[in-house]
Amino acid sequence: LETKLPKVGTTIFSVMSQLALEHKAVNLGQGFPDFEPPEALRDAITRAMAEGKNQYAPGIGIPRLREQIALKTESLYGHRVSPDTEVTVTSGATEALFSAIAAVVRAGDEVIVFDPCYDSYEPAIELQGATAVHLPLTLPAFAIDWQRVREAITPRTRMILINSPHNPSGAVLSRADLDELAAIVRNTPIVVLSDEVYEHIVFDGQEHQSVLRHEELAARSIVVSSFGKTYHCTGWKVGYAVAPKALTAEFRKVHQYLTFCTFNPAQWAFAEFLESSPEHYLDLPAFYQAKRDRFRALIAPSRLKLLDVPGGYFQLVDYGAIRDVDDINFSEWLVREGGVAAIPLSPFYESAPDTRLVRLCFAKNDATMEAAAELLCKL
Amino acid sequence: LETKLPKVGTTIFSVMSQLALEHKAVNLGQGFPDFEPPEALRDAITRAMAEGKNQYAPGIGIPRLREQIALKTESLYGHRVSPDTEVTVTSGATEALFSAIAAVVRAGDEVIVFDPCYDSYEPAIELQGATAVHLPLTLPAFAIDWQRVREAITPRTRMILINSPHNPSGAVLSRADLDELAAIVRNTPIVVLSDEVYEHIVFDGQEHQSVLRHEELAARSIVVSSFGKTYHCTGWKVGYAVAPKALTAEFRKVHQYLTFCTFNPAQWAFAEFLESSPEHYLDLPAFYQAKRDRFRALIAPSRLKLLDVPGGYFQLVDYGAIRDVDDINFSEWLVREGGVAAIPLSPFYESAPDTRLVRLCFAKNDATMEAAAELLCKL
Ligand SMILES: CSCCC(=O)C(=O)O
Ligand SMILES: CSCCC(=O)C(=O)O
Repeated sequence: LETKLPKVGTTIFSVMSQLALEHKAVNLGQGFPDFEPPEALRDAITRAMAEGKNQYAPGIGIPRLREQIALKTESLYGHRVSPDTEVTVTSGATEALFSAIAAVVRAGDEVIVFDPCYDSYEPAIELQGATAVHLPLTLPAFAIDWQRVREAITPRTRMILINSPHNPSGAVLSRADLDELAAIVRNTPIVVLSDEVYEHIVFDGQEHQSVLRHEELAARSIVVSSFGKTYHCTGWKVGYAVAPKALTAEFRKVHQYLTFCTFNPAQWAFAEFLESSPEHYLDLPAFYQAKRDRFRALIAPSRLKLLDVPGGYFQLVDYGAIRDVDDINFSEWLVREGGVAAIPLSPFYESAPDTRLVRLCFAKNDATMEAAAELLCKL
Repeated sequence: LETKLPKVGTTIFSVMSQLALEHKAVNLGQGFPDFEPPEALRDAITRAMAEGKNQYAPGIGIPRLREQIALKTESLYGHRVSPDTEVTVTSGATEALFSAIAAVVRAGDEVIVFDPCYDSYEPAIELQGATAVHLPLTLPAFAIDWQRVREAITPRTRMILINSPHNPSGAVLSRADLDELAAIVRNTPIVVLSDEVYEHIVFDGQEHQSVLRHEELAARSIVVSSFGKTYHCTGWKVGYAVAPKALTAEFRKVHQYLTFCTFNPAQWAFAEFLESSPEHYLDLPAFYQAKRDRFRALIAPSRLKLLDVPGGYFQLVDYGAIRDVDDINFSEWLVREGGVAAIPLSPFYESAPDTRLVRLCFAKNDATMEAAAELLCKL
């Protein structure tokens, strides 16, 4: 059996979580919190199950949840969407990204992605017989070089995939970035796919520049988000896609045959929780900013150099002062000898620059952060 | 935006469920029970959430659940598989089917499917740039004509997709069928994809002829099943795929980027329930056979002609004595005027024969069956 994905192995997140387990390391690798989703949300799932929400949900998501997503989109980003024709509930953001790519991208097409990028993008593109065109973000701010984007556009460019707040760097796009993007895609058939799973985790008083705030871009974009990062339940796998009607129609054609529908009781629970506790996501920036600042303070005495973190829940650190080896090497050493699991950056690159960076997740309780910091300060 | 799936509209199951809702019809269309999963299973989900199983599960499924699936496979079908390298938990059988097709089938390949067939197969095949080669099952028994299969094989045939018990007909494959299949694929690179989601619903004392009972076939097959049909929770979307190591490796490459992992609390719940209540699926044939027989008795006085039902939870009926129109037409009339939602067969065909058949789901409580039967007997 010849493989269709010769470049793909086991995703780095699974590899590092497995190593963390084996070496009983503090796991700051894979991006998930070590605290729990709100009790009201868990109770609502239990109630939905007792009330008989155990059979297929509508493939596109239950109306009540799509309605809440549309309301949120309007109140946060001033963008009105129809819950019936422009919002689709998915089995996590990963499924939404895959469905979006499979719905739009054809064999021979090119998709522009920005390195470092999340590792699911390229295999999803390759499975369409298309090519991922990797453009590097410019260091140290992990910014998009729009001139390079302009130069990379060809008649085959079918999609540009952006991600803000950015994983792994935490960089956020500005309104000026969105304007640049809009100018580039104007009068082309290019679709924008915007991965905004960390939309509610933006720091220092900045506003998340959702593509949905930008009417011109919103009219040609598929915007993907997730409840996993927002409600501390990455293992529940409920996400969604917002897109204009024509794109949503194509998106749904694929989605319905990919997973058909998503765990029904959680859909009722999220709908209820969004209705009753809209403040949850409004409180999230402060909640995570406190964690970011605490984590940074704790590891400040270490020999790790801390990069800025404008959003998301990851801290990039430069370990160059500790060991002069590549990041895979360092991560393996760190989990084995240092007792801390991190995520190397090179798997996020087509061709990685010679940096000395790894990613640490600070979506953790104080005790976990302290345990990790103690180990990291010893390096 | 040109569509990648010109033949695809909204799946017939969603369309009919929506019509049933609008017309307040008794819904015997989409295949789901109107009774609840075991309370112990729901309680186990609640407990798993309380115990903090709310973050990412391993992408391939939690070890305890894969272990249970392997044990079941051995005790039922005498086939030993490694939970680590041959079992993968998925977000429902639909995702497993899509992942299997995307992992194995390439542009230009041919996949043999048997009509009537489940409507997700062809779009999944087409999205690979491959072609579904539709062979008709021979009526009235919905049997595979193996001579036609032999004639349909070309150097491009990459996969044969079988489904037993069969949706929509309930037909089951025999050991002789599996032997025919084995002879056809021997010394070819053809992979068998076996959709066995109704594996525990086989009637009249017959044994389910899983591909996993057939060592030669099992060595080249991906077998897909689901907990939704077995545990009365179609909306929970937990399925799995069993395949030999090399196929599983390719399957997982795709799966990890399609959904990454599946609702974690349900994985713990199914593992626990399989450990404590293995009799549940052993009791299922009798449970559904009683429903089948009760439903048949209730509609025997109607002008519908009942076809045999060897397995699954659907009853095919010939409505020719009532109206001489095609099955879409009849189904629309039936839901509007007759008050019962059914599923027409033609959406399961590339080119439907001129039959007068619709599908009725009997996974229903007595009261539902009685209400439906009263309406059906009036036609
Ligand atoms: C799906 S596992 C990876 C989770 C994540 O978003 C990350 O760690 O980057
Ligand atoms: C995924 S909706 C269809 C459910 C089903 O298996 C059927 O009705 O055939």
